Amino acid sequence: MSEVSEIDEAEWELWQDFLTMHRDLMRELDRRLQSDAGLSQGDYTVLLTLFKAPDRRLRPGALGAAIGWEKSRLSHQLTRMVARGLIERVECDTDARGSLIVLTRDGRRALLGAMRDHASAIRSLFLDALEPDEKRVLAEASSRVLRRLGGSTACDGAEECAAG
Amino acid sequence: MSEVSEIDEAEWELWQDFLTMHRDLMRELDRRLQSDAGLSQGDYTVLLTLFKAPDRRLRPGALGAAIGWEKSRLSHQLTRMVARGLIERVECDTDARGSLIVLTRDGRRALLGAMRDHASAIRSLFLDALEPDEKRVLAEASSRVLRRLGGSTACDGAEECAAG
Repeated sequence: MSEVSEIDEAEWELWQDFLTMHRDLMRELDRRLQSDAGLSQGDYTVLLTLFKAPDRRLRPGALGAAIGWEKSRLSHQLTRMVARGLIERVECDTDARGSLIVLTRDGRRALLGAMRDHASAIRSLFLDALEPDEKRVLAEASSRVLRRLGGSTACDGAEECAAG
Repeated sequence: MSEVSEIDEAEWELWQDFLTMHRDLMRELDRRLQSDAGLSQGDYTVLLTLFKAPDRRLRPGALGAAIGWEKSRLSHQLTRMVARGLIERVECDTDARGSLIVLTRDGRRALLGAMRDHASAIRSLFLDALEPDEKRVLAEASSRVLRRLGGSTACDGAEECAAG
């Protein structure tokens, strides 16, 4: 712990630029999603995760694990989305683990309507700013940082219940 | 708008890995800051920004602009930090723009106590995961994305008032 090497000026600048880039990028993507489709990035992430799940449904715990949110944040988000008709809660009879979160027809429509503009924004603001070799470097660096974090947000599906 | 090129699988994967890497990195840094120093990353960012400001003080608007937070989020954060004695609000007599946020002695001590461990965590989880040429690529890519966003979170200081 005691032999920490100093962080030099260029490294601090890199760290700051990385944080600022992520923050401003997320803010602009959020702004565009709101104005194009009336969705926040949180809404979009939940809708997309459900859309990709077997039978378009997940247990809240599996949904939270897949998107990496804590319980209370997820709970507030889901309550708002249920009220707007984007998702619904249904009881799961086949085990005692409670309800499932299911994508509604309106939620699916909202997601599909937003996808094209959102992808276009990700391309123009982020992907198109990177050269092919920069993309490769960023992908490798991201994987390496993730390995250091040892973080696997395992997504255990809802197959048993969805099939029941 | 109509000729959006598709985003291929590798690009989606890059985008997802980038988001996941940032999210998990921030969460781990936050966890360590909390356990090492009892501070959140929000606390830390506010303390550091004040520490670097002229006379360790900023108007709330300038503070929000510097760290890129919206008014309501900042306001809640500052209220909590005042209650904990990390910062204080003082009136600014020289103009009509109201109060200044000032770093307290306790806030300065908390920041300085946290800095070493926080820097060490940033080094071990992020900087040390990157080769020198990867750092260069990431710095350039971050700058380029920021230029595309056109975002300059200008920090107009509190010099006039601090000097008054």
